[in-house]
Amino acid sequence: MSAPSVAPPADPAALSPRDARALFRAGLRVPTSGYAAGYTQANLIALPRDLAFDFLLFAQRNPKACPVLDVTEPGETSTEIFGGDLRTDLPAYRVYVNGEPTAEPTDVRDAWRDDLVGFLIGCSFTFETPLLAAGVPVRHIELGRNVPMYRTSRPCRPAGRFSGPLVVSMRPIPADRVADAVRITSRYPAVHGAPVHIGDPGALGITDLGRPDFGEPVPVEPGEVPVFWACGVTPQAAVMASAPEFAIGHAPGHMAVTDVRDSSYQVP
Amino acid sequence: MSAPSVAPPADPAALSPRDARALFRAGLRVPTSGYAAGYTQANLIALPRDLAFDFLLFAQRNPKACPVLDVTEPGETSTEIFGGDLRTDLPAYRVYVNGEPTAEPTDVRDAWRDDLVGFLIGCSFTFETPLLAAGVPVRHIELGRNVPMYRTSRPCRPAGRFSGPLVVSMRPIPADRVADAVRITSRYPAVHGAPVHIGDPGALGITDLGRPDFGEPVPVEPGEVPVFWACGVTPQAAVMASAPEFAIGHAPGHMAVTDVRDSSYQVP
Repeated sequence: MSAPSVAPPADPAALSPRDARALFRAGLRVPTSGYAAGYTQANLIALPRDLAFDFLLFAQRNPKACPVLDVTEPGETSTEIFGGDLRTDLPAYRVYVNGEPTAEPTDVRDAWRDDLVGFLIGCSFTFETPLLAAGVPVRHIELGRNVPMYRTSRPCRPAGRFSGPLVVSMRPIPADRVADAVRITSRYPAVHGAPVHIGDPGALGITDLGRPDFGEPVPVEPGEVPVFWACGVTPQAAVMASAPEFAIGHAPGHMAVTDVRDSSYQVP
Repeated sequence: MSAPSVAPPADPAALSPRDARALFRAGLRVPTSGYAAGYTQANLIALPRDLAFDFLLFAQRNPKACPVLDVTEPGETSTEIFGGDLRTDLPAYRVYVNGEPTAEPTDVRDAWRDDLVGFLIGCSFTFETPLLAAGVPVRHIELGRNVPMYRTSRPCRPAGRFSGPLVVSMRPIPADRVADAVRITSRYPAVHGAPVHIGDPGALGITDLGRPDFGEPVPVEPGEVPVFWACGVTPQAAVMASAPEFAIGHAPGHMAVTDVRDSSYQVP
């Protein structure tokens, strides 16, 4: 099923969550960073009911990477925080069979199963608005690219059927703003919070920042430090490593735009 | 099975977690507040595997009352944070059949089932050590009693099979130390954190502070305010309200003494 061509909006930040979701439902396929500014975005992972406990336990044991914001009721495709339809209202999805990605459609109505439980996981795009408001640059937004994401050599704590590596997102931050970036993002523990690692990509097992595992590369300029945050693609890396029979996730960077304001997830 | 008579130790606060557990295993039946000072205590709820997802989701949706610290692996009776045996090393248990408490033994080896998943839930006893260190009085410790706990009129957010009221613990705090009590306990979000309610028991549906639903009453002196914290007995109130076929909890106030220091759950 090829998506219809939908033009990106002139001012994505100004869209309401409902209007952003309508564009994605109509077929607009773009990374969502910068869309509906001030509203929380979420990672999606949907799994068969008989794997739901193992996954929720995996999330509980790896809270920095997998902060659970909401969970669907059986048979439902929307949640308290996401008024849209989880099968159509994200810009792109990944369908996994036995841990292998088999398709990246813009709509998963055909693939969705009644026994799926959908988990919405916090996303670091949420704290990009306060970073920008404080004058901390966010390179991938400046360049209109997807954020670069990397599998690391750091294992998650396993739970039942699920194990896999921590996945991180990376933002290059000027050396004199790194402390600000830590301070600001620490206030959002529900959406990955403070960085897990600052500088030295090699210590995370990342050999080439120019070749991310997900998303697109961005340049790290002289005087900048690569700063790494736990990433909500971690559940999909666990799906790839653990090979459950079936799963649906968002396409990395192509998030669920929720109806909840970023400020709801801010702590003092 | 009647428990052997074991004398309480002269200095319960000075015990190591291992030594405290050995006393409880030998049959000492006492509320654990004040035992093994500086080590985190936990509420226990053990449920059949087929209810485990619903319960973990209930906990995720009610994080102030049900902060999950650890979960047993299938077939295991100890966890990463609790080196003892969950069936013998708490001072007393409650066994529930179809939501009805049927026994309060000091040992549940006979009742334990292989399909049980044990959840350890944060306990407010954890922040009593820092309260005392700051000179904030903790009445039930002064009096050597169990903490008073109350069912409230405030419903938890349901999940699958589980619903029920929020349960709170109460400590009378001098009016000029209430702000300190808030500030100190806010730093321990994994063990219920800041109070959910300060003053006016009636607004929580509590008609008589002198008749707690669990634990023992303590006097509120002139100049003191009753301060209420979310309580890890909430899962047992949900068991009573939701009547799953089988469950085992700790006897309220008779906690699992873990090997983890309170300071591990402190945030800045």
